[in-house]
Amino acid sequence: MPVLLRDDREGVAHLTLNAPERLNPLSDAMIAALSEELARIAEDRDIRVVVLRGAGRAFCAGHDLKEMTAARAAPDGGAAAFKDLFDRCAAMMMAVTALPQPVIAEVQGLATAAGCQLVASCDMAVAAESARFGVNGVNIGLFCSTPMVALTRNVSRKQAFEMLTTGAFIAAPRAEALGLVNRVVPDNALSEATDELARTVAAKLGSAVRTGKSAFYRQLEMPLSEAYAYTGAVMVENMLDRDTEEGIQAFLEKRAPDWAQE
Amino acid sequence: MPVLLRDDREGVAHLTLNAPERLNPLSDAMIAALSEELARIAEDRDIRVVVLRGAGRAFCAGHDLKEMTAARAAPDGGAAAFKDLFDRCAAMMMAVTALPQPVIAEVQGLATAAGCQLVASCDMAVAAESARFGVNGVNIGLFCSTPMVALTRNVSRKQAFEMLTTGAFIAAPRAEALGLVNRVVPDNALSEATDELARTVAAKLGSAVRTGKSAFYRQLEMPLSEAYAYTGAVMVENMLDRDTEEGIQAFLEKRAPDWAQE
Amino acid sequence: MPVLLRDDREGVAHLTLNAPERLNPLSDAMIAALSEELARIAEDRDIRVVVLRGAGRAFCAGHDLKEMTAARAAPDGGAAAFKDLFDRCAAMMMAVTALPQPVIAEVQGLATAAGCQLVASCDMAVAAESARFGVNGVNIGLFCSTPMVALTRNVSRKQAFEMLTTGAFIAAPRAEALGLVNRVVPDNALSEATDELARTVAAKLGSAVRTGKSAFYRQLEMPLSEAYAYTGAVMVENMLDRDTEEGIQAFLEKRAPDWAQE
Repeated sequence: MPVLLRDDREGVAHLTLNAPERLNPLSDAMIAALSEELARIAEDRDIRVVVLRGAGRAFCAGHDLKEMTAARAAPDGGAAAFKDLFDRCAAMMMAVTALPQPVIAEVQGLATAAGCQLVASCDMAVAAESARFGVNGVNIGLFCSTPMVALTRNVSRKQAFEMLTTGAFIAAPRAEALGLVNRVVPDNALSEATDELARTVAAKLGSAVRTGKSAFYRQLEMPLSEAYAYTGAVMVENMLDRDTEEGIQAFLEKRAPDWAQE
Repeated sequence: MPVLLRDDREGVAHLTLNAPERLNPLSDAMIAALSEELARIAEDRDIRVVVLRGAGRAFCAGHDLKEMTAARAAPDGGAAAFKDLFDRCAAMMMAVTALPQPVIAEVQGLATAAGCQLVASCDMAVAAESARFGVNGVNIGLFCSTPMVALTRNVSRKQAFEMLTTGAFIAAPRAEALGLVNRVVPDNALSEATDELARTVAAKLGSAVRTGKSAFYRQLEMPLSEAYAYTGAVMVENMLDRDTEEGIQAFLEKRAPDWAQE
Repeated sequence: MPVLLRDDREGVAHLTLNAPERLNPLSDAMIAALSEELARIAEDRDIRVVVLRGAGRAFCAGHDLKEMTAARAAPDGGAAAFKDLFDRCAAMMMAVTALPQPVIAEVQGLATAAGCQLVASCDMAVAAESARFGVNGVNIGLFCSTPMVALTRNVSRKQAFEMLTTGAFIAAPRAEALGLVNRVVPDNALSEATDELARTVAAKLGSAVRTGKSAFYRQLEMPLSEAYAYTGAVMVENMLDRDTEEGIQAFLEKRAPDWAQE
C-alpha cells in the first residue's frame, strides 16, 4: 500500500497518511509523498481545497524514530542525515502554507510532535472530540524545536511554552480554546464536518481564494503600513478579475453570479 | 444630511456614520469625512476619547460597491480609481491607530468587510449582543485582503483564515472570545456601556494616555530589546511630566491628584 | 531580612520577593538582588527550574514610588536616575527570558504595573483564584509603557489596550482566558500546583529544555523560513546529544532512559 492516498471529490483532494499500524509517521517516504502530491496539487486548477487526514487511530505521531536512529550509523553520527531530514520536513510544512489552495487538517486520535506541527501548519483544522495534541519530544530528550515554529504561530506564548516543556497532551476542546483547531465535533461527525467546511470554501471563486491565501501569510510578516500597501495592490488585481466584476454585479442585482471559472 | 455626525460630550467625541439606509458604507464621501474629522480631533486637546458608531441597523457594511462599479467605466477599467480608493481607505484606517486619543467602536447590527476592518482598527470595541461580524467579500469574489490586515492583528490565524475563506458571520460572543471586541452587552445597554468605558479612559491624565497609545503600536512592531529601549525612554518622559509628578505624589499622600491638564 | 530569599529543593530554585509589608516593590535593592540571583542560577547546572513568588499578600506591586520620588531632588529632576532605573529593570525582565532554565511565576494577591510585567515576562505562570492583575499606572498619570512590552506579548491587542488605558484589575480566571497565566488554582493549592508543574519540567532532560527555551524566544522574532532554518539546526544539535540518543533508544525499547545528566 502507498504511504499516501489521494481521493478527489467535487474539487476537494483528500490526502490520507496511510501507515496506520505505525501511527502515520513522517518517514522519508511520507515526507516525499506529501511533498510530491502538494506540488502536483499546486498546479491542478481542478482542486480548490485539500483535506489532510490520517488512516487508523492516529492523525500523525511525528517523525520516524526508527529511521532516524538508523542514520546514526553514518561516520558523522547522523548529523548530515538529520539536517537533510529537518530541511525536507520544514520544506514540506512550508509547502502547505505556500500551496495556493487552502488545506484543512481533519484530526482524529493523536497529533504529536511533527504531527502536531502538521496540524498547526494547515490553514484550518477540524478535530474529533477525542483527538489529543502534544509536542512531547521533550519526554525523550528531543525538544520539539521545529514543531514549535508552527505551534507558536497558532497558540499564545505561555500555553505553547507549557506544552513544549511538559510534553503534556491537550484535549480537543482545549486545542480549540488555544487556537490550534477551528472547531471540535463528535468523533462520528468528523469527516462530514470537515467535508462541509471544505465544500463551503470550494464553492468560492477560486482565484480570489488563492490570491487571498497567499496574501494572508505574506502580510502577517509585514509592519502595518507595508501590509496595507501590499494588500491594497492585491485588492486592485482582485477587482480587475472578470469573475469578481460579475460577482459584484450579481450581488448588486440580487442574483447568483455566473462565474467563468466554475 | 451629512454622512458623518459629530457630537462632543464631556471630552468624548461621538462620530456617527450616517447613511443608515445604505448600511453606512465607506463611500468616497464617508472616507473623506472620517479622515477630516480624525485630523481635526488629532489637534483638539479638549477631546480625550473618540467613540465611533453607525446610525440605524448596521455599524458599517464595508465599501460602496455601486461607486466602485461605476469606476469601471474609466479607460483602465477602474484600476487607478481602485488603487486610489484602497490607498485612501488604508490611510483612514491607519489614522485611527495613529490618532493620539483612544478610539472605541460601538458596534450594533452588521460590521462586514471594511466595516469589520474598521472595528478591528479601533483601539477597543464594545458590541451589542445581536451584532454580527464578517469579512464576507469572498462570497462575491472579492477576498477581504485589506480588512485581513487589521483582522489578523486582532484574531489568531486559523480563526481569521476561516472567517476570510468561508465568508461566514460570527456572533458577538464569538467575536469577544476571538479578541475582536472587548465586551458584549445587551442591545439596549450598548451606548451606555460604551460611554462608561469612554468616560473611564477620559478621566485619566490625557498626556499619559496619548503617549501610551502611540507607544503601544510602535513597540508591537519591535523586537524585545528594542521595545524596552524605546519604552524606557517613553517612561522617563512620562515621569518628568509635572502632572505625573503630582499624580504620584497624590497617590503617596492618599489624596486625589490636582492635575493642571484637567 | 534580605529582600530576596532563595530556597532550592529537588533542582527547583524558589525565589521569594521578601518585602511583604510594602507589597514587594521592585526597589533598587530588589532589582539588584533578582538580577544577581538570576545570573548565579544561569551558571548553576543543578537548578533546572525557577519558581518566582512573593511573600505576604501580594506578588509584586510594581516600582518603588517613594524611591522614584526621592530621585526628583537631583538637578536634572531625576531624568538620569529614571533612565537608569528603567534600564536596570528591563535588563532584569529580559534576564528572566534569557535565563537557560524555565521560570514559573507563582502569583497570589496583587500583580500590578511592573509586577504584572514580571508575571508576563516569566515563561509560565500559575495563579491563585483570588489573584488580581493590573497595569494601573495610568491611574496616577504614569502609563505602564514598559510593562506593556511584556503584556502585549502575552495578551491580544484590544484586551491589553483596555487594561492599560482603564487601569482596571482583572481576576485570575480572566487572566487565564487572556493568556497571561497558564492556570488558576484554589488559593490553598497554589504552592503545591506550582511545585508540581516545576517538578514536571525539572524531570525532563535539562540540556533539551535549555536549548528549547532559548530557541523558543529567538524563533518567535523571525520570519517563517528563517525560523525553520534556525530551529532545524537546533534539532540536529539536540539529536547529537548522547542523552537524547539514549532517550530515543529507551523509548523504542519501551524502557526508562538512563540519562548521564541526571
